[in-house]
Amino acid sequence: MTDLTAVVPAGGAGTRLWPLSRRAEPKFLLDLTGTGRTLLQQTWDRLDGVAGRVCVVTGAAHAGAVARQLPGLDLDDLLAEPSPRDSAAAIGLAAAVVHARNPQAVVGSFAADHVIADASLFAAAVEEAVAVARTGRLVTIGITATRPATGFGYIRPGDPLGVVGAPSALAVDEFVEKPDAATAERYLKQGYRWNAGMFVARAAVLLELLDGYRPQLAAGLRAIGAAWDTPQRQQVLDEVWPTLEKVAIDYAVAEPAAAAGRVAVVPGEFGWDDVGDFGSLQSVLPDERLSVLGGGELLSVDASGLVVTSPGRVVALLGLQDVVVVDTPDAVLVAARSHVQQVKSIVDRLAAADRTDLL
Amino acid sequence: MTDLTAVVPAGGAGTRLWPLSRRAEPKFLLDLTGTGRTLLQQTWDRLDGVAGRVCVVTGAAHAGAVARQLPGLDLDDLLAEPSPRDSAAAIGLAAAVVHARNPQAVVGSFAADHVIADASLFAAAVEEAVAVARTGRLVTIGITATRPATGFGYIRPGDPLGVVGAPSALAVDEFVEKPDAATAERYLKQGYRWNAGMFVARAAVLLELLDGYRPQLAAGLRAIGAAWDTPQRQQVLDEVWPTLEKVAIDYAVAEPAAAAGRVAVVPGEFGWDDVGDFGSLQSVLPDERLSVLGGGELLSVDASGLVVTSPGRVVALLGLQDVVVVDTPDAVLVAARSHVQQVKSIVDRLAAADRTDLL
Repeated sequence: MTDLTAVVPAGGAGTRLWPLSRRAEPKFLLDLTGTGRTLLQQTWDRLDGVAGRVCVVTGAAHAGAVARQLPGLDLDDLLAEPSPRDSAAAIGLAAAVVHARNPQAVVGSFAADHVIADASLFAAAVEEAVAVARTGRLVTIGITATRPATGFGYIRPGDPLGVVGAPSALAVDEFVEKPDAATAERYLKQGYRWNAGMFVARAAVLLELLDGYRPQLAAGLRAIGAAWDTPQRQQVLDEVWPTLEKVAIDYAVAEPAAAAGRVAVVPGEFGWDDVGDFGSLQSVLPDERLSVLGGGELLSVDASGLVVTSPGRVVALLGLQDVVVVDTPDAVLVAARSHVQQVKSIVDRLAAADRTDLL
Repeated sequence: MTDLTAVVPAGGAGTRLWPLSRRAEPKFLLDLTGTGRTLLQQTWDRLDGVAGRVCVVTGAAHAGAVARQLPGLDLDDLLAEPSPRDSAAAIGLAAAVVHARNPQAVVGSFAADHVIADASLFAAAVEEAVAVARTGRLVTIGITATRPATGFGYIRPGDPLGVVGAPSALAVDEFVEKPDAATAERYLKQGYRWNAGMFVARAAVLLELLDGYRPQLAAGLRAIGAAWDTPQRQQVLDEVWPTLEKVAIDYAVAEPAAAAGRVAVVPGEFGWDDVGDFGSLQSVLPDERLSVLGGGELLSVDASGLVVTSPGRVVALLGLQDVVVVDTPDAVLVAARSHVQQVKSIVDRLAAADRTDLL
């Protein structure tokens, strides 16, 4: 599997994980689950042995932190975006650079800030996906839905493909947007899968699909890819990067390719979560009445939920159920678990007040 | 009213107000109600004009802080106890010192850590109490009970006394201990009053009552009082203070004196609270769904209760009702209002672990 280059988009603010996740130290740079490894490092660990090479695409502001956290990452494979231009540009940049280096390479995108429970099942799914990608398809890994989530897009699987080395691969009939609750219930019953943004394809295929659906974006990315390992990199980046269309790869490539019968799905049964909010964070922790993270102290009486402590500080929690307390050196969040989505509204208010000290 | 010397016992840990109230900075030294004045200072302000002289009895550890907070306090009237020996010794010490200075003086004890809503009604009640005290009685101010509180002792009033200048004064039939809930309901219906520890008497009368009920304690206090303004103060204190019985003034004097028909009560209608816990604290603040104190910031969505913020820190509160959040530089308390009494159990655990850094 040495021809797989894993592309790790390391971005995303983790807004609903404030006050843990901040602009300067977003979710993927944090040891959110208390394992001693950050989400980025866990992603790296998981890809070790699965991919021959790992390429991280991140914002210029976080390139240094990524380099520190991943001492094994070849700095040639640390791609710093001059500015955020959404996932088609981020993954397309990596595909173009990888393709310029090795036209036969298979690339696979795996976000830096997700949690996966079973690394060996993950590796097996990626192996199948690579086998299917070699047939010229765009392949996604479709997560087995375990609840009627409204926060994810879904994949409607079609017929088995019968690809050698990928017995579980199916055609993809359709990608669908985040549903409402009733629709999500129906999707769950009908065997739809969660779209976790894991796309595997030959770099050449991904660029050809982009050529067809987003020709300007594809041309820009190809130009940057060709210049990347040359003295012209910065000049071409300066000229081209700001002109690239901001669009999600799902919308730009995956959806039209599925409609054209070009997409396959390999089921992912390995336990996945995007750790999008504190409810999600608690769900990936060991199942306890009261989950505790962080380097501070907790004293509790008759309480349940999730508490994140901060070194040198004490949290005392009395008589509250299903509560989320996140204590940090400059801010403390106290929320009902039912309201953790509204953490975003707090961050929006801080942003509106230009409170960069807290963002 | 210049012959009234107000005695302000400034003690008490305020344990159930942790993490605001600490050993080094207990409740009476805090601006708990957000007025800009500490409870001790509010007590001082309230007594200004009511008493000719104010005498503060406090632990040696807090004498300096009391002196700083009350620049108007004559240092001769700042009585530092070598060690805590309960309220009979504290108030008796002041009575003995005041009596040695002026045998005609009337003393009145008013705790440093209570809240009173209406200072002029308070002044009027004290004026009546002093008038009754001049007749040789021990006088208490009995707070009108407004709910079936189980945290206070009660006073059973008797017949009107008909003292000139004190039209509302009644005899006291009995002091009763903190009741259970059903008994408290009965007390409320039967017009019992709360015992707020406000005792007014001629210093000579208080000492004579002590002579009768607690002769050893009285003799010790008289010896200290006689030596106080002499070079022998420290020597006598060193010898006598450690031998004084630790007993509450209610038990040592008020209860037996009431049984002997020596106690009067003046009703207090001025709005009183001992601010014993965070529920009590919220009740003395302006009536709002969400009460906010402190010098930090609060961002809230769909929340009610009490929040105390800390300068330089932010509290974000989402979707919790009747909650108490108290944020301090080294600890944050998050409690259901129904559980605020159990703050004591947190403090007990810290004490058991010898966490003096947090106590």
